[in-house]
Formats: sequence, structure tokens, C-alpha cells
Amino acid sequence: MKKSPTAEIISVGNELLIGHTLDTNSHWMAKRFTRFGWTLLRITVLRDSLAAIKDGVTGALRRKPDLLITLGGLGPTHDDMTLKGVALALHKRLILNPGALAMVKARYSKLEASTGLTRFRRKMATFPEGAKPLPNPVGTAPGVMISVGTTRLVSLPGVPSEMKAIFTGSVIPMLRASKGEAPEEVSVDLVGIIESALAPALDRTRKAFPGLYFKSHPRGREGGIRTLIQLHVYSVDPDSSARLDNAIAYLLRELSKSAHHDPKGQEKPDKTVLES
Amino acid sequence: MKKSPTAEIISVGNELLIGHTLDTNSHWMAKRFTRFGWTLLRITVLRDSLAAIKDGVTGALRRKPDLLITLGGLGPTHDDMTLKGVALALHKRLILNPGALAMVKARYSKLEASTGLTRFRRKMATFPEGAKPLPNPVGTAPGVMISVGTTRLVSLPGVPSEMKAIFTGSVIPMLRASKGEAPEEVSVDLVGIIESALAPALDRTRKAFPGLYFKSHPRGREGGIRTLIQLHVYSVDPDSSARLDNAIAYLLRELSKSAHHDPKGQEKPDKTVLES
Repeated sequence: MKKSPTAEIISVGNELLIGHTLDTNSHWMAKRFTRFGWTLLRITVLRDSLAAIKDGVTGALRRKPDLLITLGGLGPTHDDMTLKGVALALHKRLILNPGALAMVKARYSKLEASTGLTRFRRKMATFPEGAKPLPNPVGTAPGVMISVGTTRLVSLPGVPSEMKAIFTGSVIPMLRASKGEAPEEVSVDLVGIIESALAPALDRTRKAFPGLYFKSHPRGREGGIRTLIQLHVYSVDPDSSARLDNAIAYLLRELSKSAHHDPKGQEKPDKTVLES
Repeated sequence: MKKSPTAEIISVGNELLIGHTLDTNSHWMAKRFTRFGWTLLRITVLRDSLAAIKDGVTGALRRKPDLLITLGGLGPTHDDMTLKGVALALHKRLILNPGALAMVKARYSKLEASTGLTRFRRKMATFPEGAKPLPNPVGTAPGVMISVGTTRLVSLPGVPSEMKAIFTGSVIPMLRASKGEAPEEVSVDLVGIIESALAPALDRTRKAFPGLYFKSHPRGREGGIRTLIQLHVYSVDPDSSARLDNAIAYLLRELSKSAHHDPKGQEKPDKTVLES
């Protein structure tokens, strides 16, 4: 079984922690990691604070993911301090990156309203030593990539359109290059059963199908008899993906057994219907 | 100036990290922390893994927030392992909690479909030693509260309706009891300006108004001249909240100065319009 490459995301911004903005960036990215068979180990949301960014980056690097993405805090203003925090965590100096400066210059030369390369604009080309810029086709601040041991650390802007453009252009090729096995998935909706009544049958099915991963999401209320559980089954092991449907069938047999034949009447789902 | 009480959230679930589910729970909770003047320092999203949960909880406790919330993984199934991870982090045993067991029993006695208190149901009442249950008015798994030094650690279910009910019933009273100063906020939309042209005026305004926190969110494209920036100004210091509008007025004057009077023509926003 091929080991799945691993990733972590660090999302920076007070707006995420005061409840102003919902972090849809990480969610968008998580889907792509899964699609290319990568395992996203952790998402950390941090405040615009140098100490917090340094601490978060240091902690993530200690876990040695293959890829560490930071999101946000690359812009020209005072509270954009991600690269300073990254530099602190890596014990590197911040220096003007000629490649990045060329990208920022090219961008501003297209804009009527601006004529100078102010210190605020140069800030967007000031990278930790040894980093390289990733082109930003829809905005100004380039992405930043730097290798730290076996981890590639990539810093992207938090503006969704810019994050997506750089991720698609520069990060997806990395995911593709060390592609893992994308997990296959089957999901069923179980109607009229409560999660604690599902648990014993699920436990037996789990033991009968090693290499599969089961996750149940209760969707209905437990207060009444009619509830809905979404059950997702993933193959963790590429060898086992063919067995997904068998596992569902096995589980349903186990469920109907406990409904009709359990002499102690321990687990009686009223009625179990398979929807979709 | 009164110190704002601090919180962290740890959200547990593979579904959040494979891109299946967007973590709206943390966002909902973040708004409430802000409303009661608490500072949410960090959100950490972890996989359903004992090692990850233990590590995440240990790390958060080291930062000594006043409140640490875990979300998810309290249910009856095999992959609900939050309390086991918390117990490992705290070096505590897991034991059947009589108060929690009474809550789970009362719940199931209302449900036609169930007759027994199986091990899967007892699991929901198995708490780290020294913890106390928080009533769950809309589901089965009670919340869990345990004190660790100066941190109150609260574990809540991940089902949004249950999380919200326990949070509202048991956590909001804690927030209210050590209420901080809720930050006041003013926000303006600046039209026709790019963020790097805003930066110098913003920098001068920031220096003129200590105690205020400025955050600019670029919303328009930088590729054309017409862009939109949402600027939020918060009072970090309760003494400064009255100055929010003055700060906006000052910033606008600074912006118009650089548009018309800068002899070097360094920063020329084409036109700056205040919307809303």
C-alpha cells in the first residue's frame, strides 16, 4: 500500500476568528487534496499576530507534512505579517526577492492609477531568504515557496480568487507529481434508525471489512423515532475499494438481523430504509 | 483596560479535512465569543485520530486559554474518540459518569425504538475522571466539562443543533460571567482604490489612532482600476471606541491628500467613494 502524501493548512486572519468571515478557502483546498489522494492532517486558524504565526508554523513543521500551506497575510498593509512570522519560524532573514519584485512591477505597470513602487508594494516582494515566487495571475502578491527539510512550505494570499489561481497554477502540479490513491467512497442514507442502534451492526461490519473507513453522520433528530443517518464508507487501502458495496450490503443484513432476531430486543430500529 | 478572556476551539472530524463538510460550527461559535468580548485565539481542525486529538489538546492547554472547546466525536460509534483523546492528554482515566448516565438513560426511555442501555450508549456517559455533564436538550450525548488549571475544557457534540443547544444553555452563561469588552466596529467600502495605494494613508491613520485595529479586505480585482476594499475598524481598547468615526474621517482626508497633493504622484487613487 502506497503511503498517502500529507498536508497541513494554516489560515491567518482575525476576521476568521471574530466570526466575520467563514473560512471557505481551507474547505476548497481540502477537496483538492482528497481528489489527488493527499491526506490533509490539520487546519489551524490563527490571528494576525507574529507570535501566533511563528508558533503555528513551528508546530506544523515539527509534524513534517509533505506540504504546508499558509493562507492570508501577504498583502501590502501593516497587518499582513505572514511572511515575517514564517521567517521567524525558519530563522531566516526577509530580503527583497528579485523574481517576486519583477512580478509586482509588471503588475503595477498595468495599472493606470499607480506610478511608483512604494515600500508597501516592495513589501509584497520581500520574502524569507531562499524562497521562490509563484506567479499570481489575478492579483499582485505572488505566492511564496520555500523548502524546509522534506516539507515544502507554500504561502498564498487569502483573497479567494488569488488563492485559487495560484493553487491551481502552482500547487496542483505538485499534488499531481506525488499523487496518492484517491479514496473511493460510497454513501447511503439510513432512515428510521438512531445512531446508537446502528453502532453494534456497524462495529461488526467494520471488523469484517478491514481497510474500509466508516463515518456516520446523524442528520435527523434523536427525539423522535424517525431519524436519518448518512453513512459514508471510504476505502483507505486501494486494495479494498472493490469491497465498498459488499460492506454496505453486509451492514444492512446485520441491521435487519438485530431488528428481527435479537431475542433480548436490544437494538430494534423501527424500520430501516435505504435511500439513494 | 480590562483583559479580554481567551478561548480556543478544536474541531474534530475527518469529514472536515477531506472537504466533505464545511466547519460552520466554529464560525457560529466565533461570533458568540466576539459578542461577549472574548478573544478566540485559535481554531484547530483535527482528524478522528487518538494521537492527533491528544496532541492538539495538549498543545492548546499549554497556551492556557480560559476556555477550550472541543467539537465533535462524542457519539456512540467507534470513530467518536474525542473523550479518549482528552483523557490521554489529561492523564486521566475514563469512567462511567453517573450524572451523564442518568441523562442518557432519560433520553432513551423516551424513544420507542430502544430498550437497552447498550455499551454503545454507555460510551456516551463515559467521561474523563473529574468531568461533569452538560445537559443536551436536543440529542443524546451530553456535553462534558472539566477544569484543567485555569482552563475550563468543554467538549460538545458536532451535530450543529446539539452543539448550539448545549453552548447556549451551558457555555454562554460562562461567557457572560467573565464578560470582556465587546469590540465596537465600523466598516466602510472604499471604491476605486487599490490596496497598495490605501496602505500609506492607512499607516498614518493607524499611528494617529492607537487602540484601534484596522483590517482591509480587498474585494475587487486589482487587474483594473475599479476595485473595492472593505475596511473594518475595531476598537481594541474600550476607551477608544468613541474615536472610530474620527479615524475613518481622518483616513479619508489622508487618502484625498495623496490623490491630489502628492508632488511625486506616488499614490493616486483614481477616485475614492465612500459607500455605506
